Amino acid sequence: MTEKGTVLLSITGFPADDWMAALTAAAPDRRIVSEPDGPEDASIRYAVVWKPEPDVLSRLPNLQAIFSVGAGVDHVFAAGEPPAVPIVRAVSWDLTMRMSEYVVWRVLDHHRSGAAYRQRQANRIWEEELNQPAASDVTVGIMGLGELGTDAAGKLANLGFRVTGWSRSAKTVDNVTCHHGEDGLKTFLSDLDILVVLLPLTKATRHIVDGDLFAKMKERGPLGAPILINAGRGGLQDEAAILTALDAGRLGAASLDVFETEPLPANSPLWSHPKVTVTPHAAAISVPAELVPPMVRQMDAHEAGEPLSDTVDPTRRY
Amino acid sequence: MTEKGTVLLSITGFPADDWMAALTAAAPDRRIVSEPDGPEDASIRYAVVWKPEPDVLSRLPNLQAIFSVGAGVDHVFAAGEPPAVPIVRAVSWDLTMRMSEYVVWRVLDHHRSGAAYRQRQANRIWEEELNQPAASDVTVGIMGLGELGTDAAGKLANLGFRVTGWSRSAKTVDNVTCHHGEDGLKTFLSDLDILVVLLPLTKATRHIVDGDLFAKMKERGPLGAPILINAGRGGLQDEAAILTALDAGRLGAASLDVFETEPLPANSPLWSHPKVTVTPHAAAISVPAELVPPMVRQMDAHEAGEPLSDTVDPTRRY
Ligand SMILES: NC(=O)c1ccc[n+]([C@@H]2O[C@H](COP(=O)([O-])OP(=O)(O)OC[C@H]3O[C@@H](n4cnc5c(N)ncnc54)[C@H](OP(=O)(O)O)[C@@H]3O)[C@@H](O)[C@H]2O)c1
Ligand SMILES: NC(=O)c1ccc[n+]([C@@H]2O[C@H](COP(=O)([O-])OP(=O)(O)OC[C@H]3O[C@@H](n4cnc5c(N)ncnc54)[C@H](OP(=O)(O)O)[C@@H]3O)[C@@H](O)[C@H]2O)c1
Repeated sequence: MTEKGTVLLSITGFPADDWMAALTAAAPDRRIVSEPDGPEDASIRYAVVWKPEPDVLSRLPNLQAIFSVGAGVDHVFAAGEPPAVPIVRAVSWDLTMRMSEYVVWRVLDHHRSGAAYRQRQANRIWEEELNQPAASDVTVGIMGLGELGTDAAGKLANLGFRVTGWSRSAKTVDNVTCHHGEDGLKTFLSDLDILVVLLPLTKATRHIVDGDLFAKMKERGPLGAPILINAGRGGLQDEAAILTALDAGRLGAASLDVFETEPLPANSPLWSHPKVTVTPHAAAISVPAELVPPMVRQMDAHEAGEPLSDTVDPTRRY
Repeated sequence: MTEKGTVLLSITGFPADDWMAALTAAAPDRRIVSEPDGPEDASIRYAVVWKPEPDVLSRLPNLQAIFSVGAGVDHVFAAGEPPAVPIVRAVSWDLTMRMSEYVVWRVLDHHRSGAAYRQRQANRIWEEELNQPAASDVTVGIMGLGELGTDAAGKLANLGFRVTGWSRSAKTVDNVTCHHGEDGLKTFLSDLDILVVLLPLTKATRHIVDGDLFAKMKERGPLGAPILINAGRGGLQDEAAILTALDAGRLGAASLDVFETEPLPANSPLWSHPKVTVTPHAAAISVPAELVPPMVRQMDAHEAGEPLSDTVDPTRRY
């Protein structure tokens, strides 16, 4: 039996304490370090990362795999080319359930005129006559039918919404009308009332949510102008175009959990826009106690010669 | 073949035009009137009602059945004893779907700290550290496991919540821990984080949501103090007790769609309470085009000698 490889925890941007504690608890038989022992630490076999420092990973001669603490892996590529080892992303029931909570919450808050009712309450206005279409008259279109998009789609369909989806490759999903590729995008966009973005951020998807995309959407539906919900990544959206579309009435409202720059700068007009709901990249938090044990199980299995799962395609980069 | 009976539409409190139009469309072969022809109109066989004038119905010698335009029938009994004919209540997929939209919307807005995030947005505060339990750590308890409560329960369970319920008689509902009767109430109340009230208003349930009930709930859970959502009837709740419980921290927040007096008076402290969300009895609107055709089908079937369905138990009065 080979000795168990050391794990490097390389997290920037938020405190790593909970991740360190979860790793220590889940892998008591492994050495866990938050920095390599010198520039070329040969003991490190696995790296658990969020926005890793680019030159740290590339100097580890025995690195076997990189584990992302998030479902998205754009952060691994953001600072430069990572070493050519498999990248494992976070796929977990807990994460998926949390994202679907967020998506269903935001869809219903728009569908049920949450902002308008809060405004009326503030003005003590009792008025039953707000237009209320049935969910079955409202189409929610989901960009990205992966782990997260597919689960959210099913839950929205269960609530009675008409649900459509768009992905790179062709899919079949129960109760969801699926479109794919460039050709499918136009049809997908032309018939939706609420657009939910759950794409990964890649070269192919950067700024995909822009003025051109809004121009392809139908102008009015049962909720008025189409509504945008983005819980994918901020780099998917052109925020200037979103503001223009909101002010022109081309978009009816937006719920944004992710932003081109995070934290969202204090001077961003999105904060105070009456049609925008801001949450601080909190749609689906990665819970260390949920995500670390399966990572460690994968390390153990890998050392036993088994293949890694939930790996990122090196060409598509998601 | 007997001639088709005349239908009296007796609606007070909101405009009846849409109901008249839907009846005319669904029953072109029936006479539809909004007032009896004289005090003892023998042609009227069916009454479609909301808060009917008490002495109108009791003077109709050939009345066969009363159809409520809402799921609740307390309004039929409110103004005095109605004639002893079957009362048919509104049971409809459309109505049920709408109520579940409302319930899931309010549960998620509380669960996902909607009010706190809106407050933070207003102050341009980016802060990821709001406590966010998983749905699977949160128990939603539903009072009333009828048409509406059962559907909402299933949808909440599908989102990952632990769901419990309480009814008069014993029930078995998939993925829901069911309690019933006086004895079951204490256990039910002692273990919930969000209480959803979907009971009918009867002698047995009036003011059931009061200080005694709050005292039986656990004090703190993953969301803090328990949260109240009432979409049943305002008469189920003691509003003074709700305000006291909110201010004492015994209740964490409340979403109320129904009130002891409707419209909610402009001077009610509920309007401006920071922990209360008010909607104007809009949780599940009765859509004439959805509810009238099945009413007319029941009239036709009744005249063909078939039994009525969705009738109210004359003793229990729901
Ligand atoms: N805000 C938050 O808190 C939070 C939390 C977790 C995740 N996220 C974000 O959510 C994203 C999605 O996660 P996931 O687990 O669902 O990812 P996933 O399983 O990899 O699914 C990605 C989906 O996007 C589609 N897609 C990718 N590139 C495309 C393109 N160029 N054109 C059309 N469709 C394309 C894929 O199509 P195919 O199916 O054809 O491959 C797939 O359906 C993550 O990448 C991350 O950025 C955000
Ligand atoms: N806010 C709105 O827009 C709106 C719209 C529609 C309806 N509503 C309200 O929602 C209510 C429920 O509708 P529904 O169609 O679900 O009614 P339902 O099918 O008659 O169900 C009523 C449920 O309450 C239970 N229940 C009644 N009395 C009880 C008691 N004394 N103790 C314990 N449980 C009791 C019943 O128990 P059993 O199963 O044992 O009989 C049943 O589970 C309506 O009455 C109406 O007031 C409000």
